[in-house]
Amino acid sequence: MSVNEQAIELHRQHGGKLEIASKVGINNKDDLSLAYTPGVAAVCTAIEQDKSKVYDLTIKKNSVAIVTDGSAVLGLGNIGPEAALPVMEGKAILFKEFADIDAYPICLDTQDTQEIIKAVRLIAPGFGGINLEDISAPRCFEIERELQDLGIPVFHDDQHGTSLTLLGALINACKLAGKRMGDLKVVINGAGAAGTSIVEILQSQDHDPEVCEAVKQIIICDSKGIIHKKRPDIKDNPAKEYLANITNPEQLSGRLEDAMIGSDVFVGVSVANCVNQEMVRSMNKDPFIFAMSNPIPEIMPEEAKAAGAFVVGTGRSDFDNQVNNVLIFPGIFRGAIDARSKVINMPMKLAAAYALADSVGTPTVDRVLPDVFNKSVALAVSKAVEHAAKSGKLSPRILA
Amino acid sequence: MSVNEQAIELHRQHGGKLEIASKVGINNKDDLSLAYTPGVAAVCTAIEQDKSKVYDLTIKKNSVAIVTDGSAVLGLGNIGPEAALPVMEGKAILFKEFADIDAYPICLDTQDTQEIIKAVRLIAPGFGGINLEDISAPRCFEIERELQDLGIPVFHDDQHGTSLTLLGALINACKLAGKRMGDLKVVINGAGAAGTSIVEILQSQDHDPEVCEAVKQIIICDSKGIIHKKRPDIKDNPAKEYLANITNPEQLSGRLEDAMIGSDVFVGVSVANCVNQEMVRSMNKDPFIFAMSNPIPEIMPEEAKAAGAFVVGTGRSDFDNQVNNVLIFPGIFRGAIDARSKVINMPMKLAAAYALADSVGTPTVDRVLPDVFNKSVALAVSKAVEHAAKSGKLSPRILA
Repeated sequence: MSVNEQAIELHRQHGGKLEIASKVGINNKDDLSLAYTPGVAAVCTAIEQDKSKVYDLTIKKNSVAIVTDGSAVLGLGNIGPEAALPVMEGKAILFKEFADIDAYPICLDTQDTQEIIKAVRLIAPGFGGINLEDISAPRCFEIERELQDLGIPVFHDDQHGTSLTLLGALINACKLAGKRMGDLKVVINGAGAAGTSIVEILQSQDHDPEVCEAVKQIIICDSKGIIHKKRPDIKDNPAKEYLANITNPEQLSGRLEDAMIGSDVFVGVSVANCVNQEMVRSMNKDPFIFAMSNPIPEIMPEEAKAAGAFVVGTGRSDFDNQVNNVLIFPGIFRGAIDARSKVINMPMKLAAAYALADSVGTPTVDRVLPDVFNKSVALAVSKAVEHAAKSGKLSPRILA
Repeated sequence: MSVNEQAIELHRQHGGKLEIASKVGINNKDDLSLAYTPGVAAVCTAIEQDKSKVYDLTIKKNSVAIVTDGSAVLGLGNIGPEAALPVMEGKAILFKEFADIDAYPICLDTQDTQEIIKAVRLIAPGFGGINLEDISAPRCFEIERELQDLGIPVFHDDQHGTSLTLLGALINACKLAGKRMGDLKVVINGAGAAGTSIVEILQSQDHDPEVCEAVKQIIICDSKGIIHKKRPDIKDNPAKEYLANITNPEQLSGRLEDAMIGSDVFVGVSVANCVNQEMVRSMNKDPFIFAMSNPIPEIMPEEAKAAGAFVVGTGRSDFDNQVNNVLIFPGIFRGAIDARSKVINMPMKLAAAYALADSVGTPTVDRVLPDVFNKSVALAVSKAVEHAAKSGKLSPRILA
């Protein structure tokens, strides 16, 4: 059987990849009287009198809703909430496996921005965090931004999970190549959810210069080429206008291949095969290529290396340096929940990426990121995030 | 430690009574490629192409949302969604324990009827059924009614779980006393969610007369006494006006004690100690008393028996004949989900109650209902409900 056939068979056999398990036995009247009526009334009353106790006495302590509208699922696009459910279930079991977080899929029957925001607000009381998932740009930006006052962390993994994993890889690649982040010229292809967050993360003014300087020179491209202020379509697209304003300091225009000339890093969150060896050769010496289009990268690793790439990463598990969100999202939520933080802010995000980079130990060109099955990574990330949440500062262990 | 202290300690120790468990191992890249990317894409595509496959390939197959707004929780009243969560968790673990259904609590941050309806519609794609819970009357009626077009069963357990359990008890009490349901004079005290459903269930025209005739004479009371059309407050209360129109054929007026004179059955879904022995003595010979106020019944069983009651039931586990919804809700959802029914209609409800009555075998006055821990009950109920859903008819086993 092919992987596809095996996957369908696995899902048919189980009829869903997750289930509810009780932590308490219900075998007799005494059990029932403590876990349910009449004893549970005392638990309810304790929370009614002091709402913060919901964190001590209920699942809110350890639960995350994985919320999607099914509008941007994997590389499949807008397939709707039902068809998105297998991905959300998969995400939920990764949360459990890597961070012991109880995550539950919530697939919404709407793609209206305000209705999604409203739905998340309505379901929030029972959850300790919200992982937004596979919601298309630019709606994802507004949804995440407007929900920052919810009182529990709201984090869009397609944006920041990707960008923070990439940052971890980039820190180690710089270390190996003896390059400084502040000197890099970075070209990003793909101006959606992930591309936008990569810009924000790399340029953040919250970076600790002892670990990682802010990147000063970023050019971001979409299917129409380099994004700059004078491109005619920019004025009608606030999300792209925003990018034009914060990137491309010289306001270059042209195509992706123009942008790549003399650059140090290519970051692809775009489409298969849009980069060729000539474009890699036009970059500065020892360039880094992160070709994260899935399943087919922007350029295959062997081609990129043959054209002079120093470090190559992709989104795929069958190549070295897999840039996989699972290195970030379990740990960042674990840390945020353990700190009872109301948000996942920029210091927490950067602390996660620094801890990820640090977790590799001694990086090599084939290993700028840890193996995704290294379960100590989530713990290291969570500790750094918890520290950043509580102190507002990056972890001293990472700075040391 | 008291039960209350023990209950709080149990909840603190576990920090929530349920958790998410993975049904598939995620231990290496092959596992990941089937349960998550890239293999999961084939599962998504299969559902995108044929939406009905969401029932074969995802958790929708076996999942129920337990939805509350926290407005009518146990006897505690309107305590809000956070304080309601421990009850919803308890309900979820009962669903798992008694019917292997994966139920998840959704506590809504609104008590607006239309917002609750909207929220349920928005979250529906990932669930196979909706159990409405602890939502106060009369809003619960409108919410349940408007959601009947959702395409998955929507069932308000406080209404029908209670009424169907009571019906099961009443069928067996009649059998023991040699009384016919069609001849009974029934007095209900409490005109909220449960009281209203009891009226509808007892009067249903879908009853199979070989098992159970429709009750013709019901008087329902609230805190102001007997509900009748000319009571001044009735015109302003559509839910009570409805009850005045379908009950009380002679349009009697007066207090609860007036209603009880010459009646055969007292059903209390009201408040502690509102019935005394004199009121029981005013009833017909060998009356049935179901005093379901919790934790303190309308009259204590020993008092009711001393005053001549033939069968006495309460909501409490420490007396005989516990009228407990857990005898109905796991089985009725199991049967509805197994049948892939879009609703839980009246034939399915009645089939559940008949199967419950039948499950007792040979009833006695101390045993008109099975023990709540008899797990074969949910199976029997589910089979009858599944049959009724598929055939539109009551189960032949029950009719035999």
